[in-house]
Amino acid sequence: MIRAGIIGASGYTGGELMRLLANHPEVEVVCATSRRLDGTQVSQNHPHLRSFTNLKFQNLDAGEVAGQCDVVFTAVPHGSAMDVVPQLLESGTKVIDLSADYRLPYDVFEQVYGLEHKAPRDAVFGLVELHPEVCDASLVANPGCYPTGATLAAAPLAAEGLIEQAIFDSKSGISGAGVEPSQASHYPNMAENIQAYKLTTHRHGAEMRQELGRLDGNIKVSFTPHVIPSVRGILTTAHLFLKAGTDHSQVADIYQRFYKDNPFIRLLDSIPMLGPVRGSNFCDIGFEMDADGHRLVVVSAIDNLVKGASGQAVQNMNLMFGLDETMGLWNPAVFP
Amino acid sequence: MIRAGIIGASGYTGGELMRLLANHPEVEVVCATSRRLDGTQVSQNHPHLRSFTNLKFQNLDAGEVAGQCDVVFTAVPHGSAMDVVPQLLESGTKVIDLSADYRLPYDVFEQVYGLEHKAPRDAVFGLVELHPEVCDASLVANPGCYPTGATLAAAPLAAEGLIEQAIFDSKSGISGAGVEPSQASHYPNMAENIQAYKLTTHRHGAEMRQELGRLDGNIKVSFTPHVIPSVRGILTTAHLFLKAGTDHSQVADIYQRFYKDNPFIRLLDSIPMLGPVRGSNFCDIGFEMDADGHRLVVVSAIDNLVKGASGQAVQNMNLMFGLDETMGLWNPAVFP
Amino acid sequence: MIRAGIIGASGYTGGELMRLLANHPEVEVVCATSRRLDGTQVSQNHPHLRSFTNLKFQNLDAGEVAGQCDVVFTAVPHGSAMDVVPQLLESGTKVIDLSADYRLPYDVFEQVYGLEHKAPRDAVFGLVELHPEVCDASLVANPGCYPTGATLAAAPLAAEGLIEQAIFDSKSGISGAGVEPSQASHYPNMAENIQAYKLTTHRHGAEMRQELGRLDGNIKVSFTPHVIPSVRGILTTAHLFLKAGTDHSQVADIYQRFYKDNPFIRLLDSIPMLGPVRGSNFCDIGFEMDADGHRLVVVSAIDNLVKGASGQAVQNMNLMFGLDETMGLWNPAVFP
Amino acid sequence: MIRAGIIGASGYTGGELMRLLANHPEVEVVCATSRRLDGTQVSQNHPHLRSFTNLKFQNLDAGEVAGQCDVVFTAVPHGSAMDVVPQLLESGTKVIDLSADYRLPYDVFEQVYGLEHKAPRDAVFGLVELHPEVCDASLVANPGCYPTGATLAAAPLAAEGLIEQAIFDSKSGISGAGVEPSQASHYPNMAENIQAYKLTTHRHGAEMRQELGRLDGNIKVSFTPHVIPSVRGILTTAHLFLKAGTDHSQVADIYQRFYKDNPFIRLLDSIPMLGPVRGSNFCDIGFEMDADGHRLVVVSAIDNLVKGASGQAVQNMNLMFGLDETMGLWNPAVFP
Repeated sequence: MIRAGIIGASGYTGGELMRLLANHPEVEVVCATSRRLDGTQVSQNHPHLRSFTNLKFQNLDAGEVAGQCDVVFTAVPHGSAMDVVPQLLESGTKVIDLSADYRLPYDVFEQVYGLEHKAPRDAVFGLVELHPEVCDASLVANPGCYPTGATLAAAPLAAEGLIEQAIFDSKSGISGAGVEPSQASHYPNMAENIQAYKLTTHRHGAEMRQELGRLDGNIKVSFTPHVIPSVRGILTTAHLFLKAGTDHSQVADIYQRFYKDNPFIRLLDSIPMLGPVRGSNFCDIGFEMDADGHRLVVVSAIDNLVKGASGQAVQNMNLMFGLDETMGLWNPAVFP
Repeated sequence: MIRAGIIGASGYTGGELMRLLANHPEVEVVCATSRRLDGTQVSQNHPHLRSFTNLKFQNLDAGEVAGQCDVVFTAVPHGSAMDVVPQLLESGTKVIDLSADYRLPYDVFEQVYGLEHKAPRDAVFGLVELHPEVCDASLVANPGCYPTGATLAAAPLAAEGLIEQAIFDSKSGISGAGVEPSQASHYPNMAENIQAYKLTTHRHGAEMRQELGRLDGNIKVSFTPHVIPSVRGILTTAHLFLKAGTDHSQVADIYQRFYKDNPFIRLLDSIPMLGPVRGSNFCDIGFEMDADGHRLVVVSAIDNLVKGASGQAVQNMNLMFGLDETMGLWNPAVFP
Repeated sequence: MIRAGIIGASGYTGGELMRLLANHPEVEVVCATSRRLDGTQVSQNHPHLRSFTNLKFQNLDAGEVAGQCDVVFTAVPHGSAMDVVPQLLESGTKVIDLSADYRLPYDVFEQVYGLEHKAPRDAVFGLVELHPEVCDASLVANPGCYPTGATLAAAPLAAEGLIEQAIFDSKSGISGAGVEPSQASHYPNMAENIQAYKLTTHRHGAEMRQELGRLDGNIKVSFTPHVIPSVRGILTTAHLFLKAGTDHSQVADIYQRFYKDNPFIRLLDSIPMLGPVRGSNFCDIGFEMDADGHRLVVVSAIDNLVKGASGQAVQNMNLMFGLDETMGLWNPAVFP
Repeated sequence: MIRAGIIGASGYTGGELMRLLANHPEVEVVCATSRRLDGTQVSQNHPHLRSFTNLKFQNLDAGEVAGQCDVVFTAVPHGSAMDVVPQLLESGTKVIDLSADYRLPYDVFEQVYGLEHKAPRDAVFGLVELHPEVCDASLVANPGCYPTGATLAAAPLAAEGLIEQAIFDSKSGISGAGVEPSQASHYPNMAENIQAYKLTTHRHGAEMRQELGRLDGNIKVSFTPHVIPSVRGILTTAHLFLKAGTDHSQVADIYQRFYKDNPFIRLLDSIPMLGPVRGSNFCDIGFEMDADGHRLVVVSAIDNLVKGASGQAVQNMNLMFGLDETMGLWNPAVFP
């Protein structure tokens, strides 16, 4: 059994990692750290894990975690992962970092996050569908939730050099804002509402530019996020303006070829919705084209806590350990 | 124009008072206090009041408020109203207290709230339909939200001495928990959920016992509250066990007679719901009877922030100033 | 008193007209037609109107309605208004048509709706902020809900000729889909979801192109609608690509000048949300600009049933009858 | 592999059976019938099952289904199961009937459902925790959703003869109303609302009376259901009036003893909620006691589609085939 640790396990991504790993046949979670909840039962904080774990949260340093684990998931805020990742790597532990610390080149990171990077390391960007090299990585930077849905929606066309300009208008469930109550997540504010925020400045735009830019250096990317009255899910509406006119079947072909070996990408003839991916690691993609063939609207749907975070992390872990990509993740969504 | 002040105006009941009074033809809100928001625009905190008020929150003491007002609404937490009410009364200002401080005899208050009462005063319990004497009151204790819906559901039968036992199972919108974010009001916790709480010990039970006990000294009252994924509204399911069998038309007669002069009580042939009272001061009541005629299930629906708080406060104010009970309140619900 | 009739009064816009007119000091609704509900109480179908109207739905033809009314609101599906509007106009009644039949030149209408127009008439497009000539109109075509929010978000910049391309990504409450249950409005499908639809082909795009095209003939307009788990409201995210760079204060100036005489437009320093407009006739507008000054994201928020339908219809009626634009509509939103 | 068939597979319980069985190591679903959807892909109707099944709905009669199956789940409306169950049983197939047809003695059924029973058979009531004899059954009547949560909340005390009177006030997610859109499930009606219905006459009361009556012939049972703005889940608030005073630890002991061998019952020190059981087969139970020790409020939480329907059906199937009760069902809830 692969022994896994979770640093920063009290939040939603920590709980989701434990939910997904509860039934993984090759992995056992052996430690879960939380400074704040040191000594309390994991299942008291994550009540859906009652009967599934007797672990208690511990306040351990990186060395103590590395000593008992083959792989460590760092589920801490950006700026904190860089404090523990180097020591974990030096101990020979594989690391999947769910924070933003290793997703961008360190200089880009510093500019985007306004923060000095204390410990740059080489990492693979863990969007498996674009980065098969995660198989050989010891440090994987698990992608942001928005970049996952947006990049997957546009990558096949970007790889063909077809996109002039991409405008990603994303709608996320509020669980993305985390476990701590805030004005944004206060029920009377969020219910019967939709909150647009950081209309032109959300940091996740940098990951989209990096990943689509790798495929086509000239692509122009804009990104505007919203939160909607849903707990889970991100629907991304990608308004793609093309360099040359094309037609529906050509586009369908491009997507099918691009994703033919990716079990978690489902290409639909209809428009994706959040229900059919809820709780699962799938990314559903569908599209429609303007009459003139120059504007395409592609819609992608993921569960932000699964394919957008913890599920993708497990998918990365599977590949890093030579396991089948789908192990422990091959579950239908919970719908309705 | 009647000059009104609101002490503790930054919460939901404060905002709702200003919403309702914005169109009251005989009242002007002249001051709104908040220690925390001193100096900020009221409409920045209550964004629905943009274009309706230029007031700023002020940090004023009771005397300063009394000096400029004919009536003061105290919308502060229990235990705080007793600090300001005596001085307001001594200044000759009429007071409508939305806190719990004056709803119960002081000794009952102390027992229920575990708090010494520093300033007992005579007050009228402001459930207008049962207390016509609010017309002559200078201090009205505005009822709790749950007691309003529960008492109105059972009062007509209690007044006839018919009820052996009343079990009130109430379901409230989360706005009743206030403007401050908390675990209970955190969207991921409240959505797709219902939270039962204080199953046998909620303090509002004391008001129900007092008010129904006034009508029938032997009635037995149980009360269990819940919060549901709704911003506004309280639906109370009153399970009433009767001393003697009766029938549908007798019960209907009793309710119609009891409420014949009460414009805000609407007796339905169907089961009340929250939508048709949302944003309005109505209390809708409907019922069904067990085949044996000994158990009645009465359902009442109110908007917790209107009939359950600020609307009822305005209704009280109208009567205290000799105005028509419905003035400024005669608006349909916002449905759907 | 102005005598008003509503043809097709059983739907949400019919109910909303009656809610708004219930407190209008100069208007009385004297007839409400519905073939399906002929003879039933209006308040049975619109339960929030209990105590506010004793009207029954009637099955009347246009002539019978015209005979008793000074103004008629036609709240029927597109394709049906053209059957009654001519006769109403000939009877000297003023008409506000909430359907799509008179919003577009008849040839454009026929192309967009795939329907022969049986009775073209001259009408004013009832977006009051852009069409002061509604004052003199006898037939006003009340705008679609999406075009209202989208056009108002972009019009000031379009009037300056600054916009190269506008992408409107709109998120609507599900009440826009009407009173009849459907798969889209089925709670298990809509909750915890967001449904993108007609990604490139929604008919309301034609109204946006018409209205913005009037201001700038070269503007390119794309439109994609979504429904979100909210009953009311439309939030429109307008991604505006500008011809020349500009800055924040210039844009703010342009909006302030453009809307300086429009009481229902509120320009915010923050990002609009649905709560502060819910149940009200306001359109809140805010924006942020990309660092390079060439892309602007403007967000507008309206209540789809008020400013997006029935409220705007009353606003039009007020102007057509020489009343103050805000009469009967000057109410704060119901928030939270 | 056990070959399973589902008769009436197009509804929510059918989809949920296939979701749960998708990962069951010993079962394969080999046919799914639907008259209406004959010939269409199962995954088109149940979009969360894309990639998990290539089955098409078929229009088969009972004999054809029995011919290919070891076990058949009948997920049809009450009154319809009795048309197919006898033939299935005669073919030697085991049957788990999710309808109401075999839950009550046929004479009680006829009275409660107002319907002649065409084919009475002996069946075991499939509430596993009370009916270990399901192990030997060839026909199991899968319990109603409400009776599952209510009966489990009260059974331990009923078995001790302690309950004088039980009032079950239940709050269900709207998925219990099924896949077909209706006024009750119409989003604008259900959102921000709670709908009480059949206040004293819901048919599920009969199952509660039967099951608790088996434990204590004198118990008095009342039941009132509600639907809340949640897709899944039933929270039951059981107001239990006891014959004699007791205390908290005695009650806790009684529940622990009663359920000590039942893996899906989780006894909490806190009040159950819907999130921690969502998508799972657990029934969480917690309680509080009145100061006088005579009234107990017990709260139970289940997922209506899992423990309240399809999960319980799989649990029954496991036992009927000598498998571990938890097989295929031992998954944490999806929370948040």
